[in-house]
Amino acid sequence: MTDRILTADELEAALRAIGAERYHNLHPFHRALHAGLLTKGQVQAWALNRYYYQASIPAKDASLLARLPTAELRREWRRRLEDHDGTEPGTGGIARWLKLTAGLGLDNGYVESLDGLLPTTRFAVDAYVRFVRERSILEAIASSLTELFSPTIISERVVGMLGNYSFITEETLAYFQPRLTQAPRDSAFALAYVREHARTAEQQSAVLAALRFKCDVLWSMLDALDYAYVTPGNIPPGAFRPESQA
Amino acid sequence: MTDRILTADELEAALRAIGAERYHNLHPFHRALHAGLLTKGQVQAWALNRYYYQASIPAKDASLLARLPTAELRREWRRRLEDHDGTEPGTGGIARWLKLTAGLGLDNGYVESLDGLLPTTRFAVDAYVRFVRERSILEAIASSLTELFSPTIISERVVGMLGNYSFITEETLAYFQPRLTQAPRDSAFALAYVREHARTAEQQSAVLAALRFKCDVLWSMLDALDYAYVTPGNIPPGAFRPESQA
Repeated sequence: MTDRILTADELEAALRAIGAERYHNLHPFHRALHAGLLTKGQVQAWALNRYYYQASIPAKDASLLARLPTAELRREWRRRLEDHDGTEPGTGGIARWLKLTAGLGLDNGYVESLDGLLPTTRFAVDAYVRFVRERSILEAIASSLTELFSPTIISERVVGMLGNYSFITEETLAYFQPRLTQAPRDSAFALAYVREHARTAEQQSAVLAALRFKCDVLWSMLDALDYAYVTPGNIPPGAFRPESQA
Repeated sequence: MTDRILTADELEAALRAIGAERYHNLHPFHRALHAGLLTKGQVQAWALNRYYYQASIPAKDASLLARLPTAELRREWRRRLEDHDGTEPGTGGIARWLKLTAGLGLDNGYVESLDGLLPTTRFAVDAYVRFVRERSILEAIASSLTELFSPTIISERVVGMLGNYSFITEETLAYFQPRLTQAPRDSAFALAYVREHARTAEQQSAVLAALRFKCDVLWSMLDALDYAYVTPGNIPPGAFRPESQA
């Protein structure tokens, strides 16, 4: 809780401090992923579960778009839908994510079916979609601010995964290249919006809580992957089993 | 998916088979809890996180109650609210759960604040509340059918925890004694309702999926506890840390 009103710079510093403590680049599963310590089956499980996050982003963005009050704001937010859903079949972030899962040997139909998803992935992603749908516009925009921190993790990921896994190619990582320019553009807009509109102590507390919540979503997804796929015997009933798919 | 219409007995058998495969008495964390293999801090973490489930049950039941069409059905479901919220201060399941957390040395205010909750617990429990609020009455009632399997786990828990932990007394386990009669009564009603009303193949599939979903909720909560509190170094940012509370 903030107990006094922060300046815009102080608010930004507080948001960045949340990322420094809670962004999922600090999670042991991500460190292992980037360091080349995972098996192909474990990388498959990550890509399969993360697919549900990617595929849910347009639902999240569309529900916010539907509530934005001006054409200017809606144009800005509509660009995110174009980035994820593309402009024709086979384009956009979701299609590029399917190149990753296909490159890892997973069948597109299986990935899209969500049949092998960890229940925790579903609960965490659904919590994010609902948060954006139900909370204030300010909180919904603030929850996107994890993108402030994503260029670093994406660079680490591309370098680490290309260097460390024989089954990963530049083509399978095609998702990430556009994100290196999209994420800073999107987060710059969201940060400017939050700096301008979070003026009361209550609004500033809500903005900080929204970013903490979003970090929790990403962290929960990695907790579930680390638990299920790194220690033998922990895959929950019904979830993807690498040996039967790889 | 059921591809033909089951008889009521076949449907019940299919429901019981889901429990035999997916109910959380099979989870390694529960086995460790009942076998006396956990530290006091780990038992505290379990009770603290499970509190959020207990405290959310009346919201779940009230949202279903609000949609039930007859006084008979509402009377039946209202009893669940009475069981959990009690008839006066200090009575009911939630108050009894706080006796457990207090008996474990946790401050009631801290437990009720939800400050130390694992994010995964929140996402899983919220998913359950929303499922009951948004799905058909038939699916909502079917999702309560984990109570078919709970008398066994409660008996194991009470015997195992009393026998294995010096810090557990019959008084701190007061929550569980009434559940041994409430759960069979409630699940008998829900089972009869589902047997009678799930008549098409689609309804039967939805009922089976609802019970699978509910098993996933309970399982996800234990995955998160096992991950965060059994292997050192995995407690997510902001969550309860036994050493600072015990």
